[in-house]
Order: sequence, then structure tokens, then C-alpha cells
Amino acid sequence: MQTYPEILDFFMTLFGSILTDIREKTPLVHHMTNYVTVNDCANITLCIGASPVMAHAEEEVGEMVALAGALVLNIGTLDTLQIDRMFIAAKAAEKYGIPIILDPVGAGATSLRTKTAQRMIQELSISVLKGNAGEIGTLAGKQAQVRGVDSGGVNGDPTEITCGLAERLSCTVVMSGPIDIISDGSRTLLCENGHPYMGRISGTGCMAASVIGSCAAVTQDYLSASATGVSAFGIAGERAAVDAAGPGSFKCRLFDSMASVRSDDVDRYGRIRSV
Amino acid sequence: MQTYPEILDFFMTLFGSILTDIREKTPLVHHMTNYVTVNDCANITLCIGASPVMAHAEEEVGEMVALAGALVLNIGTLDTLQIDRMFIAAKAAEKYGIPIILDPVGAGATSLRTKTAQRMIQELSISVLKGNAGEIGTLAGKQAQVRGVDSGGVNGDPTEITCGLAERLSCTVVMSGPIDIISDGSRTLLCENGHPYMGRISGTGCMAASVIGSCAAVTQDYLSASATGVSAFGIAGERAAVDAAGPGSFKCRLFDSMASVRSDDVDRYGRIRSV
Amino acid sequence: MQTYPEILDFFMTLFGSILTDIREKTPLVHHMTNYVTVNDCANITLCIGASPVMAHAEEEVGEMVALAGALVLNIGTLDTLQIDRMFIAAKAAEKYGIPIILDPVGAGATSLRTKTAQRMIQELSISVLKGNAGEIGTLAGKQAQVRGVDSGGVNGDPTEITCGLAERLSCTVVMSGPIDIISDGSRTLLCENGHPYMGRISGTGCMAASVIGSCAAVTQDYLSASATGVSAFGIAGERAAVDAAGPGSFKCRLFDSMASVRSDDVDRYGRIRSV
Repeated sequence: MQTYPEILDFFMTLFGSILTDIREKTPLVHHMTNYVTVNDCANITLCIGASPVMAHAEEEVGEMVALAGALVLNIGTLDTLQIDRMFIAAKAAEKYGIPIILDPVGAGATSLRTKTAQRMIQELSISVLKGNAGEIGTLAGKQAQVRGVDSGGVNGDPTEITCGLAERLSCTVVMSGPIDIISDGSRTLLCENGHPYMGRISGTGCMAASVIGSCAAVTQDYLSASATGVSAFGIAGERAAVDAAGPGSFKCRLFDSMASVRSDDVDRYGRIRSV
Repeated sequence: MQTYPEILDFFMTLFGSILTDIREKTPLVHHMTNYVTVNDCANITLCIGASPVMAHAEEEVGEMVALAGALVLNIGTLDTLQIDRMFIAAKAAEKYGIPIILDPVGAGATSLRTKTAQRMIQELSISVLKGNAGEIGTLAGKQAQVRGVDSGGVNGDPTEITCGLAERLSCTVVMSGPIDIISDGSRTLLCENGHPYMGRISGTGCMAASVIGSCAAVTQDYLSASATGVSAFGIAGERAAVDAAGPGSFKCRLFDSMASVRSDDVDRYGRIRSV
Repeated sequence: MQTYPEILDFFMTLFGSILTDIREKTPLVHHMTNYVTVNDCANITLCIGASPVMAHAEEEVGEMVALAGALVLNIGTLDTLQIDRMFIAAKAAEKYGIPIILDPVGAGATSLRTKTAQRMIQELSISVLKGNAGEIGTLAGKQAQVRGVDSGGVNGDPTEITCGLAERLSCTVVMSGPIDIISDGSRTLLCENGHPYMGRISGTGCMAASVIGSCAAVTQDYLSASATGVSAFGIAGERAAVDAAGPGSFKCRLFDSMASVRSDDVDRYGRIRSV
């Protein structure tokens, strides 16, 4: 395991600079996501400094994706029509070299979700796959528990599962949890930023994907983009939790905090280490 | 009319214990609801201690409902496709003995809403039907006024109408209002918790159904579940209104308050009486 | 250019009285809008004193619109099914003399959006067309930049473009921006209320249309309704920005402020002038 300063040599300057780049370039981040937390995704994207777009009609989704810096797919409230449209959008993203971030919400809970997520990781060029232990475990072919859209954990070593799936898919995989595991198959990082409060409101998982998408829109180093995203969002969560009177206040403050996380905050307060 | 202590003998211990049970079991509460307030429903469900799920695709909705402790149907932004999917979900709920909470939003305002709600109460095993005076009055066959999704009142005695409809449908009926009326046809309770501020934001009616659904997921005594739900949510509203600077602050605080309502708060501050 | 007192003679009393009328009559404002900010639209409509309704099913949308005082169409997440339903709703609005407010979100960004908005302004009796510089410029046939749903500006004089389009369409056109331009083709007003913070959250453009719709529901003077709406909403934004700790707090306070803007606040703090 590498120490913090050793990591710093390789990554830290870059991590902070990703936030700087987002705020300079304000990339469009196209979302095809669930109708439960879509507003939160739009706002967190603005807070980190990018610009959210939501569009789904088959007549325009490819055209809109072509303008974007990243495409976030979230199957939280999927149906067959939406799946078809996600594939149209994803094909456009592939054509234009736009990174795709996939949040396989509820994979493992129903067979539609499991099969859809499996089909997506097989047929599409996913840049970042982000899910909880149950979802990532399911997609890695492990015995995993998913209860609705909540993770019930996974059998086996989470780091190995994440790393193995990343290697198999040739993409970056993020297994979210109290300690986020981020791997591209060869390099694996752990991020300890975040706060239990984040599990007490709806949408933090979805928002994390939006933040990662914003980062992936400005660098092709998707491992660093993912680590920066989960760390910056986690720092925002830590700060929002201070003195929060409850989940409502926490959510309000989470947006405030995300908007005020500075580039050097990630370098300074990011609790990221290499495995 | 029974006095408060007399009620206490029969109900009060149970009421508080319902909250305790929710927080211990964190039941899944499946929602098929409108796209306006769905995020509020998800968050209030988390605040009371349950776990919200939203899914609608015909390929998975039955499978997801089978995992849930309650199914909340809200026709606030219905269309024929959604109605079909609600029936699929409801049939699964019936099969697995999962209680169905119906919020017939706008029944009385358009014939699609009236007919859909009528069909649901006739063809489905509804456990709790919750609506405002106009909606419940309409479904009871009374002359009632519904203006958009707002109640304009009902002709006749609200308590009799609620009790009569509950008896006819063999379910619990909640007529929401400044004083909520809750009846299973033989027993009728009145709940005076709540605050006028709750009418100044969108979604409190929908959230009440989510809270009732969370309660109904842990007890088969749906009268008590409904009384506990409206009382606990009303207490949260009362507390949120204190020092609220306006509707935005109130809404934020409503989630905070809901999360902090304790089991014995319902027993202590619940203003529930029997008729 | 007319001075402030001169404007006052013609308009100011009316402006304030529009807010008074909304709060007395609480008109229904029917929305067919995007799924990203629909909850914000519902809440801001309540805050200004009107009553929001959302319905889209072809079986009921005409019936519901007939009850409303205004119809707000927002193409932020359009698809062909929604477009068809918007036309059904609009035809009902025309039949009953109900004003239509059109927010052509993203016109200029994709051809579906541009063509849909063009078809709407050609085939429907729009009372108020409200968009950013890129959207209004696109619909005026000018070279305009639209990036996702963000305006990139327009070539030419914004006031002339707005006035010219209003004249051509025989309706009121609002080009939103740091200075809002409001014209009915013969009279043109500028409104300087508002705050840069309003661009840092999702949905302020959509909410502005809801506020204008609420105003248009109580007067047939759509120029005054639009000026009152953007001014009152801008004043709310200015007040919400004071001491806001970030975008989350700002949004929460925006609803508080909107609810507390009084009729005479518009007359006193409205920075509206004639061109």
C-alpha cells in the first residue's frame, strides 16, 4: 500500500486541477436518469461547476449528447422505452468519444435491472461503472444482496471484486460505500471521504454519478476523475453534516458545500490512498 | 365520544410502537406516484425510517413489489399506461398480502381521475384510501368540489361519509383536512395534529400517504397505522412551522422534524381522539 | 425612453394589483413541463399565491385545462408524445380563452426543439413567449447560440429582436437575461430585477414562466402580467441572495422570498422602465 505522499506525487495535483478545469470549461453533462432524483442531479452538476442537460427523445438525444462532455446513465426508474433511448444516446456518445458513466441502480434486485445493466456493460463502452456493493457484486457475478435500491453487501473481498470487474470490462469501476473503492483494473484507490448522513437522503448515489460525470468531462483519466468526484462530493457531505439539524437541512447544505469545495480542498482534505 | 385516556388504553402504546418497528425493520415502501412530488415522497419515507422504492416497468414492477412492505398508489399525474402498470403492481401486492395505500389525487376534478379511482376501489383490495374531503366525498358518491387537485369541500357530514365509505369498502379511509378523519367503518378516530403551513407547499398530501404506507408496512392494523402516520407527520409539520421563514424553509424543516419525531412523541403529542 | 415616474403613471398601480388579484383568486395554473424542475414550478406557483396543476393524459388534459386560469408549456424534456398532448391542451386553452405561456427550452440546441417551438408559435395562440437570448433569437430567425439549455447569446440588438418577434407573433415576448426585455410589439419594457445567484440553480427559468402564468391568469394585459412576474420573481431572487450560504440555501430562501413579496414591493422595488 502506498502512503499518502507517494500518491500525491502521482495524482494529487491532477485531482485538484480537475475541479479547476470543470469550472473553467463548464462542460455539458447529459443525463438520462430516474425521475426521483433528477432535480438533485441537475443541481449538484451546477454546484460542481458543470452544466446539466436532460433530454431523452430519440429524435434529439443523439444530437444533444454530441454537444456534451459526458453522458450519465442511471437505471433507477428504467423501462424498455427508456432503455432503448439510453442505447441510442450511448451509441452517439461512443461515436463522438464522449465518456459514459453508468449507475446500475437496483441491479440484483430485479431481473430487468440485472439484465439491462449486464447488457449495457457488455454492449457499450462504459468509462465509469459506479454502484454500491450489491450492484457491483451482482455485475461481477458474485453473490450479492440488493434490497430495492439499497445494497445488502456482497460475498467476497470488495476490493478484489472491484478491481477484477474493472479489468474484465476495461473501464473504471467505483464501488461506493463507507470507503469507496475505485479501480481501473491495474490501479486501485480507496476514498474515505463522506458522511453517514449521505445515506439518510434520497439521491446521493445518483448525485455522485453526476459529479463523476462532470469530472470525466474534462479528463480522459477516468480513474482520477472518479476519485476526484467521490472525494470532492464526500468532502461536501462531511461539511454539510456539521451542525445539520436533520436530513432536510443536510440536503440544502450539501449543495452549498459542493459549490464551495475548492480545488485545493480536494488535495488537502481528500482522504484517498492507493492499495 | 371517548376521552383521551380511554383511547390511550386501546391504542396509544401501539401507535408509538409502530414508529419503533419502522425504524427497526426499515421496510421497503414501493411507490407508483406522480412526477411532481416523487422526490419528496422518497425523502419523507427515509425520514420516518423506511426505505423508498420507485419502479414502474411492467417487466419488473411485480417483482419489486414482492420485496416491499407496502405499495403506495398516487394518481396525481396518471395516464392510461401508468394505470395499467398500477394494476399490475396492485395484483402483485394482493398476491403477496402487501397492503395498498391509494391516494386518489384529483378524483372529482376530471372524469379520468374519478373513474380510475372508482375502478381501483372496486377492483383492488385497498387497505388505506386517503384523500381530501372533495376526493373522498366524490368516491363516496356525495356532491363534492374538487378544484384541480385542491379540495373544495363536500356536502354532508365528513365523519359519516368517511365512516360509511370505509364500511362499504371494508378498508381504512382517511379524509385529510384540518382535522383528519380516520375510520375502518366500525372505529373512527380524529387527529388534530398538523399546521396550516402544510398547505402552503406542494406534496404534503402525497407525503402523508408515504408515511401511512411506511406504518402499514409494519402492522396489519391499518386504522392504527393510518392514525400513527397522520399524527406523526402532523407533529412534524407543527414543529417545522415554528420559526419557519417561509414555505421553502418550512419544507426543509419538515424533513428534519419528521426524522426526529420519536415513538413517544406520538404517544405524548398525538392529538387523536375517538368518535 | 420614459422615466420611472412616467411609467408609474401607466403601469405601476396595475403591477402591484396583479399580485393582489392572484392571492385573492388563487387561479389554477396548468403546467405541462419538464420532469427536472416540475416540483420547483409547483412550489413557486403556490408561493406567489396561485394553485399549480399538472396533468398530461390526453383523456383528461383538456378537461383540466378548462378549469385553469393559464396554461404553461415548457419543452425542457419534450418528446413526440408530450408534444401531441401539449397541442391537445393548447387547443382546449384556446377554446376557453385561457392564456398560453410558452417556454421554448433549448430551442436552437437541437432541431426537434427548434422545430417544435416554431410549430407552436405558428399554430397556437401563444400569449407570452419567454426564453433566453439564444432561444428567442433562434425563434426570431437570428443567428443565436444555445448550448444545451443555456443561452450563448444572440447576434443583433436584443431589444429590437424581442420587439420584432412580439410584433410578428402578436403576443408578448420576454427575453430573459441580466436585464429582461418584455415587449408586446408596440410597448417594450426592461426589468433589471434579479440576481446572478438565480443562474446557479436549476429551474429559475422554468419558475419564471410559472410566475408569469400566475399573473396572466388574472389579467388579459399580458405585457403587464409578464413585467410583474419577472419583476416580482427577480425581487424574490435579490432578497434570497442576501446572506445565502450557497445555491442550496439560496433555493430554499427563494421560495420564502417569493411568498413574502407584497403587492407594494413590486411597485416600490420593481426596476422596470420603458424603452
